[in-house]
Amino acid sequence: MKHFSRSDFPLSEVRHYLEPGPVSLISSACDGDTNIMTHGWQTVMEFSPSLVGCMISAGNYSFDLIRRSGECVINLPTADMADVVSNVGNSSGENIDKFTEFGLTAVTADKVSAPLIDECFACFECVLFDDVLVDSYNFFIFEVVKAHVARRPKNPETLHYQGDGQFMISGRHISRKRLFTKVL
Amino acid sequence: MKHFSRSDFPLSEVRHYLEPGPVSLISSACDGDTNIMTHGWQTVMEFSPSLVGCMISAGNYSFDLIRRSGECVINLPTADMADVVSNVGNSSGENIDKFTEFGLTAVTADKVSAPLIDECFACFECVLFDDVLVDSYNFFIFEVVKAHVARRPKNPETLHYQGDGQFMISGRHISRKRLFTKVL
Repeated sequence: MKHFSRSDFPLSEVRHYLEPGPVSLISSACDGDTNIMTHGWQTVMEFSPSLVGCMISAGNYSFDLIRRSGECVINLPTADMADVVSNVGNSSGENIDKFTEFGLTAVTADKVSAPLIDECFACFECVLFDDVLVDSYNFFIFEVVKAHVARRPKNPETLHYQGDGQFMISGRHISRKRLFTKVL
Repeated sequence: MKHFSRSDFPLSEVRHYLEPGPVSLISSACDGDTNIMTHGWQTVMEFSPSLVGCMISAGNYSFDLIRRSGECVINLPTADMADVVSNVGNSSGENIDKFTEFGLTAVTADKVSAPLIDECFACFECVLFDDVLVDSYNFFIFEVVKAHVARRPKNPETLHYQGDGQFMISGRHISRKRLFTKVL
């Protein structure tokens, strides 16, 4: 797998990468333990502060690490990582070290204890912003406090999960900017 | 624009269409007034009941209709509707009837007052399930109570918004089912 060279990216523009709905690999760490989970139930909630809402099932080993640390990194894999993304999602960190098992590289983050995944083109360091819906819905509202994005390729192919082992891969990109009169 | 023939679709499988992150046209109605807004900040939250979380900015004319009626329909347009999707998002229902203005056809829904949009391949009738985050985040938790989806095409091209007038269009589809040991 390719390792990416990432640069700082404006926090208020994180939606550019998350709003299209890509599958992510969420990394977490707490008390010396780390883990990765495959994740698809997220939405942008605000530009500034840069808020992202994530439904993380309490059945996941990562849930406890994220709940206790209040931190995670949302990492975006490219489409050529479909096998790794599937394998990460079909195993539990209770039994294995997913970084070792699946050949992923942990890189120290700037602001959170959870590591970046070096094979991902975009990594968003997150801290828990509001836990009001964690107990009732397993829904975490995170603030992205640091964003790292590779400048090339401009539009990496991303994976979008449809359930039942099926993925859509991002296709072509179009602009309708001429029709936009509002900042949307 | 094409009109679709839609059939009933299982509520617990709505994620197949929403989880990949497509742009939707949300239709609403209250006290004889109807509207449509373009929407991208949503996430699946539960299979059963079929829950979807939607961030709907209070600045939208639709916000008030949805807040008061507690209902809406999430309609999924195909990629060839990029101009309409852009125009709907860049105009306000306060001034125009968007159905008339943009050539969209309102079809009576089964369970909610908001109409389906007949030019959309999938229409999900929603009722407000929990408004706990509406005042603080403009975040509505809806339950999908009726799902209508066209059987053909199997994988319609969908629009995925990136901000600044840019859209990604869904591309090819792949299966990694052989790697799935869990129901995910």
